[in-house]
Amino acid sequence: MTNTTHQGIREAIRARIVAGEWQLGELIPGEVEFAEEFGCSRTTVNRALQALAEEGIVERKRKGGTRVRPLPSPQAQFRIPVIREQVESRGREYGHRIVLRELRDPPGEMRTRLQIGSGRKAAYMESLHLAGKHPFAFERRWVNLATVPGFAEADLSELSANEWLIRTVPFSRGEVGLTATSADARLAAMLEVEPGEALFTMERTTWFEDRAVTAITLYYARGYRLEFGI
Amino acid sequence: MTNTTHQGIREAIRARIVAGEWQLGELIPGEVEFAEEFGCSRTTVNRALQALAEEGIVERKRKGGTRVRPLPSPQAQFRIPVIREQVESRGREYGHRIVLRELRDPPGEMRTRLQIGSGRKAAYMESLHLAGKHPFAFERRWVNLATVPGFAEADLSELSANEWLIRTVPFSRGEVGLTATSADARLAAMLEVEPGEALFTMERTTWFEDRAVTAITLYYARGYRLEFGI
Repeated sequence: MTNTTHQGIREAIRARIVAGEWQLGELIPGEVEFAEEFGCSRTTVNRALQALAEEGIVERKRKGGTRVRPLPSPQAQFRIPVIREQVESRGREYGHRIVLRELRDPPGEMRTRLQIGSGRKAAYMESLHLAGKHPFAFERRWVNLATVPGFAEADLSELSANEWLIRTVPFSRGEVGLTATSADARLAAMLEVEPGEALFTMERTTWFEDRAVTAITLYYARGYRLEFGI
Repeated sequence: MTNTTHQGIREAIRARIVAGEWQLGELIPGEVEFAEEFGCSRTTVNRALQALAEEGIVERKRKGGTRVRPLPSPQAQFRIPVIREQVESRGREYGHRIVLRELRDPPGEMRTRLQIGSGRKAAYMESLHLAGKHPFAFERRWVNLATVPGFAEADLSELSANEWLIRTVPFSRGEVGLTATSADARLAAMLEVEPGEALFTMERTTWFEDRAVTAITLYYARGYRLEFGI
């Protein structure tokens, strides 16, 4: 027999929520039904439901009844990190070094992603971002020369490819994919880790209006962590 | 000698921006200085700067002069994925299985993170999230029993720990860290991958008001990618 004080009813309803009687976000019975079931007044049920709402266990709407609190799906929001700033915020000096730069036939998947016509070459670059003397991230970059014709001859002795592109082509939108990569021999050599080491990896493709600009893959050195609040 | 039409001046200023003469976000000379330098009218300079602003190469403010467009720092925004939905959106049936559940002394770092008093135990769980018959993610979870005393005896035969906690403790805020982990023998066995495989890893700690609730580490199976737009 349920204790029919408002506290007793609050705990009885709580127990049924916690036991999974209703789905997250599902409507639970109204004051009338609970009052009948528990043999108490609507006012008492109302007080019990109000207490659960104040705790955040249920949500009540004026005419929408009372629902179990739905699954929170917290929105994460964070700034895509700028490597120079990440390095400098660790109190290290940022540096970067181009390892390879050439015109290349992109592999099929990259050709599709960057909308590069068949038979056309793209600019391909590999570069190393440094924190002091240590590798911080290794970057592979493809650039669509139809969107950014000047990139093939761009002077990248002072500016990074990223900075050069920002000065040349406005950014419209991008797609980001985060994943983990097992270091092959080349990544291991570049990042000074053992082959097979797990590397946090960020892929990013950017567009100017409808035209693909660049696709990069950044392999971060051992121990990197991307952090943000929700 | 610069071509002193507005197009000529526009291209001369663009070339200097692309060559890195000014930092991203830096003020460039005003109309008066450029007019003097190029030997043309302020109106012509104004027209050139306006064209560069429309392209998105510079930013002009009424009284703030003209700046090289600053480094874009795109805000990423995405929903922290709900595993059940991730699995179901791939057209697979979601399942989950508790592998281990006990009270344990948390290691020092976890004790600090979850604010667990010295000498006190915490609830520890390992569970496997399944897509059909295949492992989708392996979860390690600590729960602070001072914040959620009922968790030690919670019936988790129907509800996942996550769902049970949502029904019991309102969510206030969380911290997320993304990283890559090399599978040790246990992770490899659980996720049916080779030892050493690179696993995308999400750590998450959540609080209710100032009280730590739970800290989880999710190791995703091979090939997982977290995607979002910027």
